[in-house]
Amino acid sequence: MTGLIVQKYGGTSVGTTERIKNVAQRIAEVQRTGKDVMVVVSAMAGETDKLLAMAREFSDHPQHREIDLLLSSGERISAALLTIALNALGCQAVSMTGRQIGLVTDSSHTRARIKHIDASRAKELLNNKHVVVVAGFQGINEQGDVTTLGRGGSDTSAVAVAVALGAERCEIYTDVDGVYTADPNMVADARKLDVVYYEEMLEMASLGAKVLQIRCVEVAKKYKMPLVVRSSYNNEEGTLICEENPSMERPQVSGIMYQKNQSKVTVRGVPDEPGIAAGIFDALAEAAISVDMIIQNVSAEGHADISFTLDTDHLVEAMEVMKKTAHQFKPENLISDSNIAKISIVGEGMRSHSGIASVMFRTLSNENINILMISTSEIRVSCIIESKYTELAVRALHDAFALKTAPTDMDAKAKAEQTKAL
Amino acid sequence: MTGLIVQKYGGTSVGTTERIKNVAQRIAEVQRTGKDVMVVVSAMAGETDKLLAMAREFSDHPQHREIDLLLSSGERISAALLTIALNALGCQAVSMTGRQIGLVTDSSHTRARIKHIDASRAKELLNNKHVVVVAGFQGINEQGDVTTLGRGGSDTSAVAVAVALGAERCEIYTDVDGVYTADPNMVADARKLDVVYYEEMLEMASLGAKVLQIRCVEVAKKYKMPLVVRSSYNNEEGTLICEENPSMERPQVSGIMYQKNQSKVTVRGVPDEPGIAAGIFDALAEAAISVDMIIQNVSAEGHADISFTLDTDHLVEAMEVMKKTAHQFKPENLISDSNIAKISIVGEGMRSHSGIASVMFRTLSNENINILMISTSEIRVSCIIESKYTELAVRALHDAFALKTAPTDMDAKAKAEQTKAL
Repeated sequence: MTGLIVQKYGGTSVGTTERIKNVAQRIAEVQRTGKDVMVVVSAMAGETDKLLAMAREFSDHPQHREIDLLLSSGERISAALLTIALNALGCQAVSMTGRQIGLVTDSSHTRARIKHIDASRAKELLNNKHVVVVAGFQGINEQGDVTTLGRGGSDTSAVAVAVALGAERCEIYTDVDGVYTADPNMVADARKLDVVYYEEMLEMASLGAKVLQIRCVEVAKKYKMPLVVRSSYNNEEGTLICEENPSMERPQVSGIMYQKNQSKVTVRGVPDEPGIAAGIFDALAEAAISVDMIIQNVSAEGHADISFTLDTDHLVEAMEVMKKTAHQFKPENLISDSNIAKISIVGEGMRSHSGIASVMFRTLSNENINILMISTSEIRVSCIIESKYTELAVRALHDAFALKTAPTDMDAKAKAEQTKAL
Repeated sequence: MTGLIVQKYGGTSVGTTERIKNVAQRIAEVQRTGKDVMVVVSAMAGETDKLLAMAREFSDHPQHREIDLLLSSGERISAALLTIALNALGCQAVSMTGRQIGLVTDSSHTRARIKHIDASRAKELLNNKHVVVVAGFQGINEQGDVTTLGRGGSDTSAVAVAVALGAERCEIYTDVDGVYTADPNMVADARKLDVVYYEEMLEMASLGAKVLQIRCVEVAKKYKMPLVVRSSYNNEEGTLICEENPSMERPQVSGIMYQKNQSKVTVRGVPDEPGIAAGIFDALAEAAISVDMIIQNVSAEGHADISFTLDTDHLVEAMEVMKKTAHQFKPENLISDSNIAKISIVGEGMRSHSGIASVMFRTLSNENINILMISTSEIRVSCIIESKYTELAVRALHDAFALKTAPTDMDAKAKAEQTKAL
């Protein structure tokens, strides 16, 4: 539908009745400009955690099907309240649940994947100039049971309905102004980015940027749905997330990311034989533990050291697996270190610029920060360092890549180009 | 289904996670006896009011369709939590929403009437020895929108699914032990009744007995579904509500009811002409104000006085209507009195015993209580008196009809006869 904008409001944006009134006013203003508006809402902040805590009073392993029914209530409540608030402003609005918007998923309760959307009823309502308010995060499976899309699933709901209805863009409203070159709480002169490409955003999301869920960006990328991340507390323009435009110059690096909650496990002195690494990582995979970086060094005497990193949340479990598994390889030593952090630079510009990684290494070295591990992708370089150097490293890299100013306004030009197309 | 028991738990019975655990234990015990159990739950106590209060922050007249989506969340939350609690006790249970239980209603949002129920999926689950936990109070209309059955609608849901599945009885769990001969807070020796007939219960419910909703009793009566009202806090037997059994002797009076929140409006000195009363009560009906008792006295001079009673909640509105309408009849006087109460005796035994009304009038007279208005049905006599005499009147009538003891154990016999049939 030309002229349709999908707006998604997160939990803090609808966290109180006062905030819901503000959101309603914002939506009513957009509608007055002649645009059709579809809104996707999350549960009021705190609601999901409150419901989960109640369920956990009964069981450490509540049935996923029941958790889905339980949690989906939160979004239904927000949707009904926002719809009432909109009508009170004279803005005709109708709520729709996941089922009513025709969002059908597979049956993987608590982390369902969308199969298809039949938004014909929503389309009709939009054509009749109603604002349609959708309860995010939820759908139904083919048996008619309520499913949910996992934490942050409302973002995915929003992009999916935007795609289904051919919206011109999907705006994700949150409590930050957009995507920054670095965490503004850590880097005083961090700058909001006007444009970020899908690929960059995917890397950033996988590196812990909480502003958008990976799946939401994946769906947007697949269907080329432009995303805008902006704050529901002000009228700043936010960040546009869109397809890369090869004709545009891009800065070498778009942002600096860090993750503190990392640990490193090292198995020293295992035989340097085929199958050792496979044995270790099969066992971890079986225990559903995700491993991030891996390195293996071979020593002179035909022994190898294997190190890998993972989220500290899984360290205890991983060490138990390792004690059982590594035992058969008779390692000299099994040690873990939780005082590490992962520092990453991300940028589409890396595809066409060489030498960016070495700027990163040199910058860290100049600050006397030792690099423990390195991993790279086409548009990312990550280094594991001692966690006490995190702030120092992020600030030094932010300076080294001159991120506080948009280089020769490339960003602005890119944005102008992209928004013309909308 | 033979051997199926439907149990309905009200808001206080599932008001905390601790209470939900108790309810789960109670259900698990019933299932262990070999019975199939279906459970209907209300929202946790206070939840519905909390949601309504939020809606009213936006609008004095929120859309009924949105209110239904909003409020139906409360029962879905209870259903999911109770199901999780049951599974944690090793009792296989599955939740179902109004839609999943196939409860289809008309489209009168906030007070929908049930059209039909397709409980085939529930039946299958029960056959596989699952406890089915149903979110009460809600259904969907033929368009697929969520509807609710009005306050207390979970009782009606429970009876309706009991009928649809051919349950052997429907147990309504609440915070009182059953139906009493009078309000136990007012009459110290009020006695719990073992058996109450549908007709009596209908009268009692319309006279303000909050233990059961009128519609729930109507449906039970229509389909002869035995109801049991009992407490979820203890193991007392409760009150059986069932079809009358003409072969059984019944006490003349089963219970004494009172309603305090009553007002009387009197229009004095209107012309004694056809159409005057019609004019007055048409106007009140148009304003959707329910009138209870009506009397008209004709004076010597060809003038009439018309009095009627109504809930005090509607008094202000009714007086406004009367000021406009009565004006054209040029009444001498328009007065209202809120210091009145309605005292009623109810009993199936009245059908076959004469003189019961006069015992009531004499008892009140003996206490020097003046009767302002009287109305009767086949199994009920109601008197309007000054409200300050309420307690005195109820206690005197409770004594006069000897309600503190079950006369010649008729109740017990009746019960034995009825339960044999189950």
